[in-house]
Amino acid sequence: MADLGFARVDLTREERTGFPEAIFCPGKTPREIREIARALLERTSSPVILTRAGSRVFKEVRHLSPEASYHPRARLAVLRRHQGPPLGTLGVLAAGTSDLPVAEEAAITAEACGAQVLRAYDVGVAGLHRLLAEADLIARADALVVVAGADAALASVVAGLTPRPVVAVPTSAGVSPGLPGLAPLLSMIAACSPGVAVVGVDNGFGAAAFAIRLLKARGEGTD
Amino acid sequence: MADLGFARVDLTREERTGFPEAIFCPGKTPREIREIARALLERTSSPVILTRAGSRVFKEVRHLSPEASYHPRARLAVLRRHQGPPLGTLGVLAAGTSDLPVAEEAAITAEACGAQVLRAYDVGVAGLHRLLAEADLIARADALVVVAGADAALASVVAGLTPRPVVAVPTSAGVSPGLPGLAPLLSMIAACSPGVAVVGVDNGFGAAAFAIRLLKARGEGTD
Amino acid sequence: MADLGFARVDLTREERTGFPEAIFCPGKTPREIREIARALLERTSSPVILTRAGSRVFKEVRHLSPEASYHPRARLAVLRRHQGPPLGTLGVLAAGTSDLPVAEEAAITAEACGAQVLRAYDVGVAGLHRLLAEADLIARADALVVVAGADAALASVVAGLTPRPVVAVPTSAGVSPGLPGLAPLLSMIAACSPGVAVVGVDNGFGAAAFAIRLLKARGEGTD
Amino acid sequence: MADLGFARVDLTREERTGFPEAIFCPGKTPREIREIARALLERTSSPVILTRAGSRVFKEVRHLSPEASYHPRARLAVLRRHQGPPLGTLGVLAAGTSDLPVAEEAAITAEACGAQVLRAYDVGVAGLHRLLAEADLIARADALVVVAGADAALASVVAGLTPRPVVAVPTSAGVSPGLPGLAPLLSMIAACSPGVAVVGVDNGFGAAAFAIRLLKARGEGTD
Amino acid sequence: MADLGFARVDLTREERTGFPEAIFCPGKTPREIREIARALLERTSSPVILTRAGSRVFKEVRHLSPEASYHPRARLAVLRRHQGPPLGTLGVLAAGTSDLPVAEEAAITAEACGAQVLRAYDVGVAGLHRLLAEADLIARADALVVVAGADAALASVVAGLTPRPVVAVPTSAGVSPGLPGLAPLLSMIAACSPGVAVVGVDNGFGAAAFAIRLLKARGEGTD
Amino acid sequence: MADLGFARVDLTREERTGFPEAIFCPGKTPREIREIARALLERTSSPVILTRAGSRVFKEVRHLSPEASYHPRARLAVLRRHQGPPLGTLGVLAAGTSDLPVAEEAAITAEACGAQVLRAYDVGVAGLHRLLAEADLIARADALVVVAGADAALASVVAGLTPRPVVAVPTSAGVSPGLPGLAPLLSMIAACSPGVAVVGVDNGFGAAAFAIRLLKARGEGTD
Amino acid sequence: MADLGFARVDLTREERTGFPEAIFCPGKTPREIREIARALLERTSSPVILTRAGSRVFKEVRHLSPEASYHPRARLAVLRRHQGPPLGTLGVLAAGTSDLPVAEEAAITAEACGAQVLRAYDVGVAGLHRLLAEADLIARADALVVVAGADAALASVVAGLTPRPVVAVPTSAGVSPGLPGLAPLLSMIAACSPGVAVVGVDNGFGAAAFAIRLLKARGEGTD
Amino acid sequence: MADLGFARVDLTREERTGFPEAIFCPGKTPREIREIARALLERTSSPVILTRAGSRVFKEVRHLSPEASYHPRARLAVLRRHQGPPLGTLGVLAAGTSDLPVAEEAAITAEACGAQVLRAYDVGVAGLHRLLAEADLIARADALVVVAGADAALASVVAGLTPRPVVAVPTSAGVSPGLPGLAPLLSMIAACSPGVAVVGVDNGFGAAAFAIRLLKARGEGTD
Repeated sequence: MADLGFARVDLTREERTGFPEAIFCPGKTPREIREIARALLERTSSPVILTRAGSRVFKEVRHLSPEASYHPRARLAVLRRHQGPPLGTLGVLAAGTSDLPVAEEAAITAEACGAQVLRAYDVGVAGLHRLLAEADLIARADALVVVAGADAALASVVAGLTPRPVVAVPTSAGVSPGLPGLAPLLSMIAACSPGVAVVGVDNGFGAAAFAIRLLKARGEGTD
Repeated sequence: MADLGFARVDLTREERTGFPEAIFCPGKTPREIREIARALLERTSSPVILTRAGSRVFKEVRHLSPEASYHPRARLAVLRRHQGPPLGTLGVLAAGTSDLPVAEEAAITAEACGAQVLRAYDVGVAGLHRLLAEADLIARADALVVVAGADAALASVVAGLTPRPVVAVPTSAGVSPGLPGLAPLLSMIAACSPGVAVVGVDNGFGAAAFAIRLLKARGEGTD
Repeated sequence: MADLGFARVDLTREERTGFPEAIFCPGKTPREIREIARALLERTSSPVILTRAGSRVFKEVRHLSPEASYHPRARLAVLRRHQGPPLGTLGVLAAGTSDLPVAEEAAITAEACGAQVLRAYDVGVAGLHRLLAEADLIARADALVVVAGADAALASVVAGLTPRPVVAVPTSAGVSPGLPGLAPLLSMIAACSPGVAVVGVDNGFGAAAFAIRLLKARGEGTD
Repeated sequence: MADLGFARVDLTREERTGFPEAIFCPGKTPREIREIARALLERTSSPVILTRAGSRVFKEVRHLSPEASYHPRARLAVLRRHQGPPLGTLGVLAAGTSDLPVAEEAAITAEACGAQVLRAYDVGVAGLHRLLAEADLIARADALVVVAGADAALASVVAGLTPRPVVAVPTSAGVSPGLPGLAPLLSMIAACSPGVAVVGVDNGFGAAAFAIRLLKARGEGTD
Repeated sequence: MADLGFARVDLTREERTGFPEAIFCPGKTPREIREIARALLERTSSPVILTRAGSRVFKEVRHLSPEASYHPRARLAVLRRHQGPPLGTLGVLAAGTSDLPVAEEAAITAEACGAQVLRAYDVGVAGLHRLLAEADLIARADALVVVAGADAALASVVAGLTPRPVVAVPTSAGVSPGLPGLAPLLSMIAACSPGVAVVGVDNGFGAAAFAIRLLKARGEGTD
Repeated sequence: MADLGFARVDLTREERTGFPEAIFCPGKTPREIREIARALLERTSSPVILTRAGSRVFKEVRHLSPEASYHPRARLAVLRRHQGPPLGTLGVLAAGTSDLPVAEEAAITAEACGAQVLRAYDVGVAGLHRLLAEADLIARADALVVVAGADAALASVVAGLTPRPVVAVPTSAGVSPGLPGLAPLLSMIAACSPGVAVVGVDNGFGAAAFAIRLLKARGEGTD
Repeated sequence: MADLGFARVDLTREERTGFPEAIFCPGKTPREIREIARALLERTSSPVILTRAGSRVFKEVRHLSPEASYHPRARLAVLRRHQGPPLGTLGVLAAGTSDLPVAEEAAITAEACGAQVLRAYDVGVAGLHRLLAEADLIARADALVVVAGADAALASVVAGLTPRPVVAVPTSAGVSPGLPGLAPLLSMIAACSPGVAVVGVDNGFGAAAFAIRLLKARGEGTD
Repeated sequence: MADLGFARVDLTREERTGFPEAIFCPGKTPREIREIARALLERTSSPVILTRAGSRVFKEVRHLSPEASYHPRARLAVLRRHQGPPLGTLGVLAAGTSDLPVAEEAAITAEACGAQVLRAYDVGVAGLHRLLAEADLIARADALVVVAGADAALASVVAGLTPRPVVAVPTSAGVSPGLPGLAPLLSMIAACSPGVAVVGVDNGFGAAAFAIRLLKARGEGTD
């Protein structure tokens, strides 16, 4: 653990929990973010990811790493990526174009941490043929992340089409005001297809973290 | 209007609103129910329906009409049915067997008021092939009532498969405790397929009332 | 289906579901909106509508169609309208002047898709005579859309005055803070008059989509 | 104040607050109820009312007063009534027959405390003519209590028809499960007609208490 | 009724409901507001009030009336006041300084419509002596409006100190985020002192409207 | 730790956390309860308390201890009490007689664990003089537990009258249906008097646990 | 698919989704349950499980299978178990003894479907040493199911101690009334440790279904 | 009490309630804030604190006191601090860096009012070793304030590690949208470790006020 005064950086997070400590940017000053990033780059060999990062934050940290990349739609900065062979294949499906920022947060995070990601976006159930056309992608994935707002019907439908675990992410995008993401959260929690588990609203990062643990469990099994 | 002292029976409800006054039984004494039923039978020619009716209530009223029938799963008693040709064809779909009481409340009410009803039950999206096998039924209906609990994904999926209006009924059946019917209500209200409108939780009767108005609007149009 | 990379445009939506694919603008870049609009204009003959569209978006697309029009209060851009005779008559009622943006979203969308629309605005039940003065309009409509916030009492009152189906739209306009639109949503869902079905808060577009399906069901019936 | 050990009976409540202390029965033993009733009868001259009282409770207390009466639908026992001329005229309106227990709790409480009560029940807005037929009753009342469940539209409609204050009571009766009384509570709180104030769900007693204060304020004014 | 095209101005609102039609400004253009104000000034003799009005709106209408006044904290513009003797005395109490905007909305509206208003602000129960020092004011009022946020304990305490009706207004001011005004709304609805009735969150205007009806009922009574 | 197979009894809970492990009875069989009680009696010297215990449970355990006592209103069984001098003085106040079961759960638990308890019940703010008459009791307490339902105004009022910490317990007793205890929970959490902290609805036990920690902190301080 | 009239039994569910169709008993008649069970036993080779099954239901079906077993605490009946080698090791942890029914539903379902299950119950964070003593069990599991009510803190703590995926199940057991399971559901959804995904309240069955998919994904991976 | 016209400043608040009147800045003009501050500085000897104060407010008041200090992260201005020996030792723990503003509001307020504060930040349970490393700090504190968002698991874990009272503050920081602070509020209220009491979301000030009362109760006890 590196105690920077304003933060205690968890240097063994990946060994202990299968997923590296990431930097959640809101509420931290750019200087604090840079110091945490530097500590992680220098004192661990884990992937280094900044979430909910604005472009101004990226300017502050890009010089820290030659492979730094920024992904504005996902509000992600990646300073170091997973080394070594991929951990497995993750399918990331999104119901509508409004769900893209969250889907990309999940996809890019998972890629940075070692997954091979297959994307299928804009495959909501209002046009079922769009989803059925992706049967091959669904069949090839070791696990699936389904990102959807509104009625979130996509999670149940996908879970009915595959034997793989489905990690569902509700999103707050939508036509009507009110509690953002409540309808898809409750819908996914109540999913009528067994085999769905849910993370928080708009939490594409959390879905990736769960998926990475899942893919690692695959590779490290002994039976 | 027939003023029975304890109730004001609306004798012209069907002329005025397209749907006859029905008797909602909870909170009324059997004697009160019998008096209201008698007034409707004697002073109107509309269908006469008792909702949320126990079998004891039915015993109190069955002698009032030679065509009286009782439907325990739907908790409905029908004392007089629609006369004349059917108003049109209504498809009633239910996601799971737990949704049957509400689906039957909708179907029997609609039949009693003049609809020809096609039923497809246990067609939830966890096994999409069960639904797709009903493509013919869906195509033949002038309107559809979709009854579902849990994630209520069925409403959106059906609305994506047909050009007909879809009346959605959330149900309170389900595995988890909590606010009964909240998840499917919010899910259906947020349905990602345009063309869905929603009635109250477990309100199969309300869905039938809306559907009957809709079917009548079909037959009476002049353009 | 036209796969534009960032979106899969559903070219057969109107044939399949009775209502054309519309473009929901929030979260899409102007360029993406323009490309989707172009695909719909070139590869379908359906009406083309942009919802929740700002004036800047309209500038980006107006050159695509000679009949393009923009409706700022409803945040709607219409690039192509329904061809052929009207599908039927739709009454759109709004309780207060604050409900106008949502009512106009419903009315203009329905007109663009083929309905003849009769409007009656500012007819809330606080002054019942204002509503009763519109008895003729109500009688002429094949179906009604009722738009209201606050207590949303208008939906029940209208449903008691007409045999036509009433599609209710709750709005988030109002004096008090809190969950926007929750009171009228719950009130409309619980409407004491049978014959009301509800769409999402502020979802005038969804009400129009349901109404168009309903009007089409009228014209295409065979009995 | 009479300290009975298990309760502190407020003997000057009526002088101080315009409304006598009543006995809320749930959670109290019959013996405790009897002792409180005896203290109120012997040591005050105020009306004595037991709310949410079962018939067994009434048996325990009826011998305490020659004018004791029991009202099963309202679950009220009255042991002593207001003496002297009536305080004014209160209209009590109920939307449906399911609302009667709450309406009667309000009406009988108000009568016991000195109001002359005019009742109009089953006048919900689904059949507006039923309400309009009561224009005379509405005009004669000094204040109105409106009792309604479901959409509670009656409160706003009545408030638009009279210059008198409207005290609204939401009820928990209804077709759908869920939070009992939430829809009418929110609807009445958001009433679009100015001049409505609201008490708790099913709290007919609280409406009567407010109305009695209001009627007394009328008689005691000096301007 | 004056039909201005965009609005139907209710010219007989005060005669019918005891309280004049006011202009709720949000969502209306300045020109629309001016036209409605002009119609009310020219075609009625009622007080004319604009609620939730910004200073820019006031600039648009101040020339319409020589007695126009603007009240920025309450966001109210008054263009014409009640003529004739006061209707009675209204006490307006506020718990904290954060509640002042809502309290002033109630007080100024009530004054404009004919009440004599006595104010006592910053009398929350955290320092009970501040409230008890206002015993004389409370005793002189014919009715009381209590404005409070947070726990809204003031409403119950005041109702225990006076026989007059207490109209409670919850406010959204407060330390913690979350549903604005929910805690005081629920607290006031559940007030343990009988004799409290509640209007919507931050709805000082609604409290004044109810109070004016109440004061008028006093003066016009016949018994 | 004593591992009984079905439970792991925490034998050092009091040393570690200042409050002994108690037995929450619902969901456990009488035999399981008896075995846990026996382990605590034999292997610790802490007080032994059973919460939410029915009389049948008490019959199963009373023989285990000569000093066993049962308190039906509080649903508590006490098998062994605190030894040694009292830890300090705790005032327990309850607003109404309906709050007694929860108040007694707090009071008896605190007594069993070493507090001297002063009780003042039925002192709700609807009759403020009842509370003010208890000024002496309030002044003598080292800490206060305030138990109230409905608007829970008592917590704020008491906190304004004393410099001692106030532990607030919302109760679910009340007139209206709905979410039990939500109004007093939110009201207490938002208490306008600083110096109030809150435990769960009906959780008199939790209030006692917090108070015992607080009283122990008094006696053990070293500065 | 076997169409029994009242139900459409999904005979290929396990092939398609990795988890066999189970029979949710509430709302079905014993005869219906028996017919569905018979169809699954005769026409598939999958495990056959009845959930939320009372002992009376088990009497109806036990003769159908020589290996039938009943588990009253989990309300599960198992008629046929997974054949072949175990799929992997699942740790099932429960915070308190009240959580046992849900934990056992998860554990027995998972065992019936092929998992080797390691149990650690009564390991809530109020006594952290109880959890830390299970470090070995946690290390041996391929995936973990964490069952907890109240604050559900156990899920986050466990996820911080292991690199394996954590499937969290909120339970409705607890001291306070209110929305059952809402606090642990929201807490688990918001879990501060990445690597937690959540199923519905009390849905031990759903957790097992997800875990079985997850374990199968391990064994079947090809990269 | 000093009546400034716009506010009644409570000059004896500290004597009466153990905690001085503070100035909550939102909704007050800078001039009003300055006048209240001046009255408190001149007419009491209590600490003077401004909460939710922007830097512009501080500029307005800094000249009033030579010892004025401003704390931007906590949005606190302190104009006068507690005189005399410390009241005791308070541990302030925060789960994540996002919780710092609230934790600092608690810590600085408590310091200004006489507590010696020990801080341990970024000790959330996702890395339990960070918390366990602070065992010494926890052991030295007379009471603890635990500040956490998300699942707020820290409160229960800390309460299981110490015999001191734990005051829990939920925060609104977090990844997902929705009701800010609801998850940690409900989680802390339901804390599975006895000995936790809760203040409002983000209400670090309220936690300090409660803690100061608690520390004073220690010093002033007489047994």
